[in-house]
Amino acid sequence: MSLEAVLSAVEARVTPDEAERARFEEVAGELRERTLSALSELDVEGDVVLVGSTARGTWLSGDRDIDMFVRLPPETDRSELVQYGLTIGHEVLPDGREEYAEHPYVKGTYEGFDVDLVPCYDVEDAEHIQSAVDRTPFHSTYLEENLDDELARDVRLAKRFLKGIGAYGSDLRTRGFSGYLTELLICEYDGFVPLVEAAAEWHPPVELDPEDHGRETFTDPLVVIDPTDPERNVAAVLSAENLARFQHYSRELLEDPREELFFPPEREPISAAELRAHVRQRRTTPVAVVFEAPDIVDDQLWPQLRRTLGGVIDGLDDHGFDVFRADTFVEETAGPADEQGRAVLFIELASPTVPAVSRHVGPPVSVRSHAEGFYEKYAERSGRDDGDQDRLYGPFLVEDRYMVERPREFTDASEYLRSEALLEVRTGAQIEDALEERTVLVGDEVDGLVESFGRDLAAYFDPRP
Amino acid sequence: MSLEAVLSAVEARVTPDEAERARFEEVAGELRERTLSALSELDVEGDVVLVGSTARGTWLSGDRDIDMFVRLPPETDRSELVQYGLTIGHEVLPDGREEYAEHPYVKGTYEGFDVDLVPCYDVEDAEHIQSAVDRTPFHSTYLEENLDDELARDVRLAKRFLKGIGAYGSDLRTRGFSGYLTELLICEYDGFVPLVEAAAEWHPPVELDPEDHGRETFTDPLVVIDPTDPERNVAAVLSAENLARFQHYSRELLEDPREELFFPPEREPISAAELRAHVRQRRTTPVAVVFEAPDIVDDQLWPQLRRTLGGVIDGLDDHGFDVFRADTFVEETAGPADEQGRAVLFIELASPTVPAVSRHVGPPVSVRSHAEGFYEKYAERSGRDDGDQDRLYGPFLVEDRYMVERPREFTDASEYLRSEALLEVRTGAQIEDALEERTVLVGDEVDGLVESFGRDLAAYFDPRP
Repeated sequence: MSLEAVLSAVEARVTPDEAERARFEEVAGELRERTLSALSELDVEGDVVLVGSTARGTWLSGDRDIDMFVRLPPETDRSELVQYGLTIGHEVLPDGREEYAEHPYVKGTYEGFDVDLVPCYDVEDAEHIQSAVDRTPFHSTYLEENLDDELARDVRLAKRFLKGIGAYGSDLRTRGFSGYLTELLICEYDGFVPLVEAAAEWHPPVELDPEDHGRETFTDPLVVIDPTDPERNVAAVLSAENLARFQHYSRELLEDPREELFFPPEREPISAAELRAHVRQRRTTPVAVVFEAPDIVDDQLWPQLRRTLGGVIDGLDDHGFDVFRADTFVEETAGPADEQGRAVLFIELASPTVPAVSRHVGPPVSVRSHAEGFYEKYAERSGRDDGDQDRLYGPFLVEDRYMVERPREFTDASEYLRSEALLEVRTGAQIEDALEERTVLVGDEVDGLVESFGRDLAAYFDPRP
Repeated sequence: MSLEAVLSAVEARVTPDEAERARFEEVAGELRERTLSALSELDVEGDVVLVGSTARGTWLSGDRDIDMFVRLPPETDRSELVQYGLTIGHEVLPDGREEYAEHPYVKGTYEGFDVDLVPCYDVEDAEHIQSAVDRTPFHSTYLEENLDDELARDVRLAKRFLKGIGAYGSDLRTRGFSGYLTELLICEYDGFVPLVEAAAEWHPPVELDPEDHGRETFTDPLVVIDPTDPERNVAAVLSAENLARFQHYSRELLEDPREELFFPPEREPISAAELRAHVRQRRTTPVAVVFEAPDIVDDQLWPQLRRTLGGVIDGLDDHGFDVFRADTFVEETAGPADEQGRAVLFIELASPTVPAVSRHVGPPVSVRSHAEGFYEKYAERSGRDDGDQDRLYGPFLVEDRYMVERPREFTDASEYLRSEALLEVRTGAQIEDALEERTVLVGDEVDGLVESFGRDLAAYFDPRP
């Protein structure tokens, strides 16, 4: 299949049809009316703007998100702004619940659409924002001016492609391409095909500045200076891995165009038997630390989870255990965004045990005071003849230094993971408590994870770019 | 016990009594006569010099070594020199056999003494030597001039001390202090106690130049410029470890003087039960590579053995096995110096196995030609769905690079040690063949070593400075 044919097929699947567009226009119009009416009831000066992909016609068929911003005068007190926002939100969205970005806002459903109703300040330009969300209307305006219908089609192709390869979304779980970043890239390269052709050849760091007004230096692998704010890199959240992923699949698309890249088949969850077969084949020892994730939104949870995983890996390493590979998963829940299920730190060890002694290098013998201090400290503990279970070997000499082989605190990784000592590792602030009530699974016990984490484990044991 | 009392007690044990001295004088006189007579029979111009500690009265009571040098004119052809030396040697020592230093010489026994009869060139000074052994008579002359009776006593104390701590001997097995070096140090520091007091405070590199005529720069930890040759470091063979050992025990002697440091009790060989108890306690996996050592002298064997041990450790490491500690031993034989018994590479592993896959980092995705080459090579081998036993995982992404988990060639250390692949490691030249006929012992099988290597293993599991 040619690239053109693939893109046409994808286009057909992602372009909203007339009915979908009409339905959106109708609902968006109603919401605007309801919001304006709520605003006037409160007797507050302000206006309502529709932002996001639906506003610009770049949404993918089937997406049902409406982002409605209520702009209030910049001199409004922040607590008042929040209060107005919540009042209007609950008025417009009777089933709405409060969520939290930089400040609280109301999220709800209306006529089958997911609606965010967000209050912001009506500032002069994006450089003078008072709240992070104030920037959004400027983005919308910029894109409305720069995207024509043809580019809107290419934005949809790009978004679908990034979703297909798992690199779409600037949330802190994904650390991928935001919608705004995708749209800017399409503008900058003037279409989807030129963008993937360029990406296939990128040598990060890649720096783009559509308005040629950047003033700051960034260390991110992809830098796209916000056309509405010279001090902001729109791609700041994008991870090096997702950038590499985009480059990899851009080449795949050009070399072997196929619809599957845009719509990959969902992975089958792994079975317990498959999991065991992998472990047998790899001859590693899987361990899992399972705990109730704190009820915080993903953007708060995921950085903390990664930090905790890193802390536990370092802790294992400090105790001599060799971590082969590791990942962290969270159970999906049907509830609100801040309702979390169980979290897992899944760790593959090269070996479940380490020697009961570790080598500890002392000072050079020639540095007399240090050397004597070291020697005396350990010579005293040296369990030479007492058959002590926690025997220390040495001190002896290795080249010009003293060396001892000290008893280790833990020789089994599972012992360490279940011990109080684990709580000394660096963790996410809100994970520390959760970790106290953990379950540790070792070896075949990890079978128990397949029910809730079958897809995560399938991806773990069949890793792809 | 005071230091003085300890030294007096040691002195009493190491000083030859009148009878021993008289006996030595008598035998040495006879040997000289026999040698001069053999020389005149051959009608060769030359003289005979007694060298070494017996010549200088610095031998330890009980030592029965006589070193007799036959000095021949410097214009003598080397093959002639060797021939004269061997003829005289066999004449003087009827039970003598030929040994090899820089050139062959005869070693034999005479009236209960071990006698070396070595031909050398009668050169003008030590800087103009034609053979390494030519230097020896100059050393003897220098020390005869510089050592009085009191210093001779201190040389005996120093030698006994160095023997006691295991740092005496410039052979390549020991890499310790030679007799000549010991005597020079006693001269330089004017006695044994001042020497150990200085050694306790040394900060290597330590540089001594008794004749103040050194011209070269050395990188050795202890440099003692030969008083008879400004270009030679007498301590060149001394290892950093033996220097540190001397410093350590010098402090011990000063802080807690005891005769035991000069005459340590011999270690008891380890029993199989003790060996197992250590292994159980340490939770390591012992392995041993056992082979017939080639019949070469210790000075040739030991550097090759150490090189081979290093090669095998690196080989294990390259294959992912974590070596905890290792050593090499050689079985003692009663035969001549170049008759060797079995050799052992004794290696303690942290774990007997490693995962069946190893992580292999590829190029950054952005380096397109390399990245594509890497990806294609491995994507093809990726055993994604074929249930292959030698399955490759990936390629996948870690940050901006590709990564694969490749099947390992060996997952059991014993498999590797028994394989042809082991012969690819760096070995001693004359050990390579011997290694082909090796036996590999794993875990409890190393019990079989205690009979021949019980003392070595006792030292291994009770390491001291």
